[in-house]
Amino acid sequence: MTRLVTLLCFLFIIGACGEKTNLNTKTVSTPQELEEAIKNVQAGDNIVMANGIWKDIQIRFIGEGTEDKPITIKAETPGKVFIEGVSDLKFGGEYLVVDGLHFRNGYSRSEAVLEFRIDENTIANHCTITNCVIEDFNKMHRDDTDLWVQFWGRHNTLSNSYIAGKTNRGPTIRVDLEGNESINNYHQIINNHFGPRPPKGGASGETIQIGNSFSSMSPSYTRVANNLFEECNGEVEIISSKTNFNEFRNNVFYKSEGSLVTRHGNYCTIDGNYFIGDGKNENIGGIRIINTGHWVTNNYFYNIKGKNFRSALAVMNGIPKSPLNRYNQVTDVVVAYNTYINCESPWQFGVGQNLSQEDVLPSSEIRSARPIRTIVANNVIYNEKGDALPIIEHDKADGVTFKSNAINNQGVDIKPYDGLKAVNFDIKEIGENILIPSSKIAIEPYHGFEFENISKDLVSNSRSENNSIGAFTNTDFKDPNILDRSKYGPSWYSSETEEKEPKTVVVATAENLQFKLNEAENGDIISLEAGNYDIPQSLIINKKLTIQSSDKSKVTLNYSGAENSPLFQLQPKGFLNLKNVTLKGNNSQYTFASLKENMFTHFGLTVSDCDISDFNYVLKVYKESFAERITFENTSISNCENGLELSEETNDLGDYNTEYLTINNCKFNNVKSNLIDYYRGGYDESTIGGNLLVTNSTFTNCGSEEKNGILINSHGIVNVDISNNTFNNNPVKLVALLWGAKNNSHKNNEINNSGEIRVEENLEMKLMY
Amino acid sequence: MTRLVTLLCFLFIIGACGEKTNLNTKTVSTPQELEEAIKNVQAGDNIVMANGIWKDIQIRFIGEGTEDKPITIKAETPGKVFIEGVSDLKFGGEYLVVDGLHFRNGYSRSEAVLEFRIDENTIANHCTITNCVIEDFNKMHRDDTDLWVQFWGRHNTLSNSYIAGKTNRGPTIRVDLEGNESINNYHQIINNHFGPRPPKGGASGETIQIGNSFSSMSPSYTRVANNLFEECNGEVEIISSKTNFNEFRNNVFYKSEGSLVTRHGNYCTIDGNYFIGDGKNENIGGIRIINTGHWVTNNYFYNIKGKNFRSALAVMNGIPKSPLNRYNQVTDVVVAYNTYINCESPWQFGVGQNLSQEDVLPSSEIRSARPIRTIVANNVIYNEKGDALPIIEHDKADGVTFKSNAINNQGVDIKPYDGLKAVNFDIKEIGENILIPSSKIAIEPYHGFEFENISKDLVSNSRSENNSIGAFTNTDFKDPNILDRSKYGPSWYSSETEEKEPKTVVVATAENLQFKLNEAENGDIISLEAGNYDIPQSLIINKKLTIQSSDKSKVTLNYSGAENSPLFQLQPKGFLNLKNVTLKGNNSQYTFASLKENMFTHFGLTVSDCDISDFNYVLKVYKESFAERITFENTSISNCENGLELSEETNDLGDYNTEYLTINNCKFNNVKSNLIDYYRGGYDESTIGGNLLVTNSTFTNCGSEEKNGILINSHGIVNVDISNNTFNNNPVKLVALLWGAKNNSHKNNEINNSGEIRVEENLEMKLMY
Repeated sequence: MTRLVTLLCFLFIIGACGEKTNLNTKTVSTPQELEEAIKNVQAGDNIVMANGIWKDIQIRFIGEGTEDKPITIKAETPGKVFIEGVSDLKFGGEYLVVDGLHFRNGYSRSEAVLEFRIDENTIANHCTITNCVIEDFNKMHRDDTDLWVQFWGRHNTLSNSYIAGKTNRGPTIRVDLEGNESINNYHQIINNHFGPRPPKGGASGETIQIGNSFSSMSPSYTRVANNLFEECNGEVEIISSKTNFNEFRNNVFYKSEGSLVTRHGNYCTIDGNYFIGDGKNENIGGIRIINTGHWVTNNYFYNIKGKNFRSALAVMNGIPKSPLNRYNQVTDVVVAYNTYINCESPWQFGVGQNLSQEDVLPSSEIRSARPIRTIVANNVIYNEKGDALPIIEHDKADGVTFKSNAINNQGVDIKPYDGLKAVNFDIKEIGENILIPSSKIAIEPYHGFEFENISKDLVSNSRSENNSIGAFTNTDFKDPNILDRSKYGPSWYSSETEEKEPKTVVVATAENLQFKLNEAENGDIISLEAGNYDIPQSLIINKKLTIQSSDKSKVTLNYSGAENSPLFQLQPKGFLNLKNVTLKGNNSQYTFASLKENMFTHFGLTVSDCDISDFNYVLKVYKESFAERITFENTSISNCENGLELSEETNDLGDYNTEYLTINNCKFNNVKSNLIDYYRGGYDESTIGGNLLVTNSTFTNCGSEEKNGILINSHGIVNVDISNNTFNNNPVKLVALLWGAKNNSHKNNEINNSGEIRVEENLEMKLMY
Repeated sequence: MTRLVTLLCFLFIIGACGEKTNLNTKTVSTPQELEEAIKNVQAGDNIVMANGIWKDIQIRFIGEGTEDKPITIKAETPGKVFIEGVSDLKFGGEYLVVDGLHFRNGYSRSEAVLEFRIDENTIANHCTITNCVIEDFNKMHRDDTDLWVQFWGRHNTLSNSYIAGKTNRGPTIRVDLEGNESINNYHQIINNHFGPRPPKGGASGETIQIGNSFSSMSPSYTRVANNLFEECNGEVEIISSKTNFNEFRNNVFYKSEGSLVTRHGNYCTIDGNYFIGDGKNENIGGIRIINTGHWVTNNYFYNIKGKNFRSALAVMNGIPKSPLNRYNQVTDVVVAYNTYINCESPWQFGVGQNLSQEDVLPSSEIRSARPIRTIVANNVIYNEKGDALPIIEHDKADGVTFKSNAINNQGVDIKPYDGLKAVNFDIKEIGENILIPSSKIAIEPYHGFEFENISKDLVSNSRSENNSIGAFTNTDFKDPNILDRSKYGPSWYSSETEEKEPKTVVVATAENLQFKLNEAENGDIISLEAGNYDIPQSLIINKKLTIQSSDKSKVTLNYSGAENSPLFQLQPKGFLNLKNVTLKGNNSQYTFASLKENMFTHFGLTVSDCDISDFNYVLKVYKESFAERITFENTSISNCENGLELSEETNDLGDYNTEYLTINNCKFNNVKSNLIDYYRGGYDESTIGGNLLVTNSTFTNCGSEEKNGILINSHGIVNVDISNNTFNNNPVKLVALLWGAKNNSHKNNEINNSGEIRVEENLEMKLMY
């Protein structure tokens, strides 16, 4: 009897399990099977995608789950299901979950890789993307806009995912609110790891954008919490909040070149975030405030060296009666209980004030409206080295009330402010990047209107008793381990790659060279033996490689390839480090060039200790190509028709082709035109891009055929430094025409028979918006 | 023993009562006592103001009541406590109530009569004004701005009050939101009777304004419900909603010349209101929509003849990327379940479209952005006479979706719209001004996004079952008696005054005339016996009076008063109806003039069947004076230096001196300059004011000294009609210069030797904002 019962029980269990498997879980192996499975899906069902590569797949995940019975599409093994090729995934319906997919080696043909709607009539609500990776899923052209995750509807979630490598135009994540179906959305963007997004070289490179100026009146209530933003360098705005009532809590911004910006919209909460800089990089910023009613509380800023738009706290001036898409005045903002450790000029008010431009800009561009009804209270500033200007007033901060703030400025005097008291306190390190006062600062916190709502500190200690100023109430607590990557992104994925020891491959013949280049792995070194290499066609660079010799006088690459073809063709992900070689052409070809199109991600170029001669162009960077850095050092360039040409971004949308163009200790001789031509068009004061450094170099007999009469062209480039150079006998009108209103400078140049360097305060540029 | 107990009990009760009276209720009779009482007030206390007139009193009501124990200032007998003179009342604290006061015969020296704060630091929350009257409490100058009730803080209430007669600049009620203390305010404006507010003659005459463009991003949540707005004619906006999330429910707009306008701000609810016109007056409007996300539901419109800005439903065009204080585009608006009975062209889209003005206005003034994502569904239109244009598209309504709407247009064809169906249904009257379809209309209501939230109809019947289109689901229900005044305002007050039979007073001598004028009561008639009256000084008119004779040829008033003094001095509340008399001056005086200052409320003038001659000015209206109507009929004016002068409002803020200036069947002879000079300055397209009618009149030998060469000056007046007149031998360049873009017209005029009438499409005017 007992055995019978046992058997029956067993059979029952088997039956139950079987039924469950059959009814609720279906494993699919082909796009057709997946489509079929989705078509028949019911609340509570699971669809399992078999491990492997799924190529060119458009998933339209339509279904009606319930809160208790969501419908899930899952990877058979998280991280073993790869979506590649021309692929995307869109949700339509309720309570749908996508879990464990890895998007790579591909791009979306549509406007988004992952989208929370099928079309205007089929929108997603209560849907979730979790535990996924999207990497380098760029469209082929930089100007071809897309988003990687596009939110519509309400109550949708992106969680525990790793997202990195977007280089084309468009925010990585965007929340859209057009239509009543997508307001009051309460979306959640939580526990994600936003990995490196390299500089885009122009606008529209945000990591997260919530709404836009046209929906800036809408209530959004999007929550961005507990994410790690690591090297999110796409543009000046890491997060661009453009709607109302959004929350940014407990995120870590780590070495990210940009700021969290309340660009449009009002009444956002920015609470308990960490902004960690490296103490050097001036592109790493903090929080930039525009508009009304934001609360900036309990945030921690460490080693932030950003200035102006990128300062740790940048409170902007507005435009009186601003147009919808420009800058409203800052009003009713509260900045309380924040801690600033070793940040340079952390508080800047009236940022963007541009009264000096009244003559060249329309009045609807003049930011003259100072912040009003703004309270800065209970904050702590510590500078291990005294800062003469911890507060910068680009315009008078007379609408800002300071209360109960403390600064340890190592005794360095500053302009006195009521409500900012010099206090001598020590700090201690309680974890990586976390420094706090070692004892409580004896300033009674100010209790402003509704300050009781700031009920906890950064590490969730209550403020109701033993409250103190600054982000932390206690002087002793556990290291919050903010950089522990296991707390962010998918459990199955690590973005940390092991440093591989580079392999050195010796090459002695031209024939062998391209072969070895193909064979080499990322980071390898190609070492050229002495000799003359006759190169009949372009060498393809599509990974990170060093090509070098031990003596440039003994290694010459003679290029005999076709007219206008490059000796080195720099493809996406091609980072060439060229050292100690001589390069010769026949005057009709290019030394280095990007692809003419499909530069879907970045390249890079460093040339040092080389001799380059007899080319048509030394460098030709085509439209929509981008390198974070292009550097020429200790190199001579002679007898070329043209020099370095990076001037095809002529649509005047603020784009340019390299973030840093560096020329140091080089010699240019008889380069007839376009010696350096580096262009950025379109007026956009908030994009702070393009860097040209020309130093310690000599320019002789150059520019003889330069049509515009300017030797070094840097139109629209924001940061230009021309110093310690010698210009001899260059038959041009101007050595350079610099933009005085921006960060353009020149010094210690010797100019003989070569025109002059002229600085014009205001450049006439096309308004972008 | 029993008696002892009884006695003890009695003593105890007496004690308790006494204590209660002493502790909780204090009657005060002087301002000092009141001040003292307030100083010592505690939660639960009542302060009783003794009956009588309290003059020149500034009440600062500061206290901390609680929800259970509010602090009250009460009239001893509601309606028997009068606040007069230079007086105001301001609240500071929590749970304070003012009950039963009557404000009259005075004005506030401060910016408000009643204000929910003492100053920036002492703000009121949970405070209430109830059961009060404010009447004619105007400042002495029209341009001297104030408010009668100014809201600050949160959760304050104005209820059951009667408020009427504001004529000076400034909304009657304003809710202010500057500062976080005053957002999310949830104020209540309920059960009030807003009595007549006469036209202000320019902007800033709203009955209620909620916020302003600078606070238009703030969440307000103000609720305006169950109020009666009767003849609230101050300006084009009866209610100007300028913030977010406001609610307008179950109000009655009765013969009020204006509209409920969502001027700034978004996401307002306009539900269950009645808009009742008189079937003639084109100034009576409905709802005008600007901005995003408003829901216009369950409203009833009857006999509304307003056009364009004032149409029953006016959906405006916006300015692309509008400046903060101009017109945002309409998006995401829902207009559902409304009923329109006998309204002319009730639906107008793209209102304010002004592309034709592109050449004369800056681009930041051009309203070219059409409504988008807007739904008009489940509405009913009934026209007892077919309307060729029930829908007017000032710009294409291609962003508007129509669903399940019905129209009975009596078979008159209209342009077809998907979603608007011609249906033949009858209507029946179920109460005064309430007409409804007599049987259910067979159109299934459209179910749009969140339409389930429109859960009830106008009279609170559920829509969940037996739903139907239109404001009423049932075809049978009780008359809602919307005009029963006892439902609104204070219980003790009635605005309805008994019609008094006018008294006729016969006057035969000049000496007696002013005496009788002083003695007369409002509405009386002064009947002049035949004779010559020598009037040595101005006759004061400060009430409504008729002065007449039976034969003008036998009654002459010869004015011998001082130079530049008027024969009739029109003071505030002076409404003169002059009939059948001859008026003569000595060429140096004025016939009629307002006061030079302190015209704290309106005057009026009708002149018929009179002969006027030998004055310097016939009419001089000084700055800040205003008459709703000035009429000259069947009257001859001759041999005067100047005619009718209403041109002192030169600050170009849109103000003017009379709403209607009517000249009909008059003869002007030898009036040398300023024949008619009627001025309004400042470009403000939404103020639709000034009306000049010049008809059936003859002008001979006038304008001989007119410096500007124009006989009839109507600069900036929006409505001008010059027709059926004869102009003979007037030595001017132009008879009139009309404004083509506005409602200026002329026809059937005979012009001999008098220049011409010129129409210019666009007038150069100063922008007001």
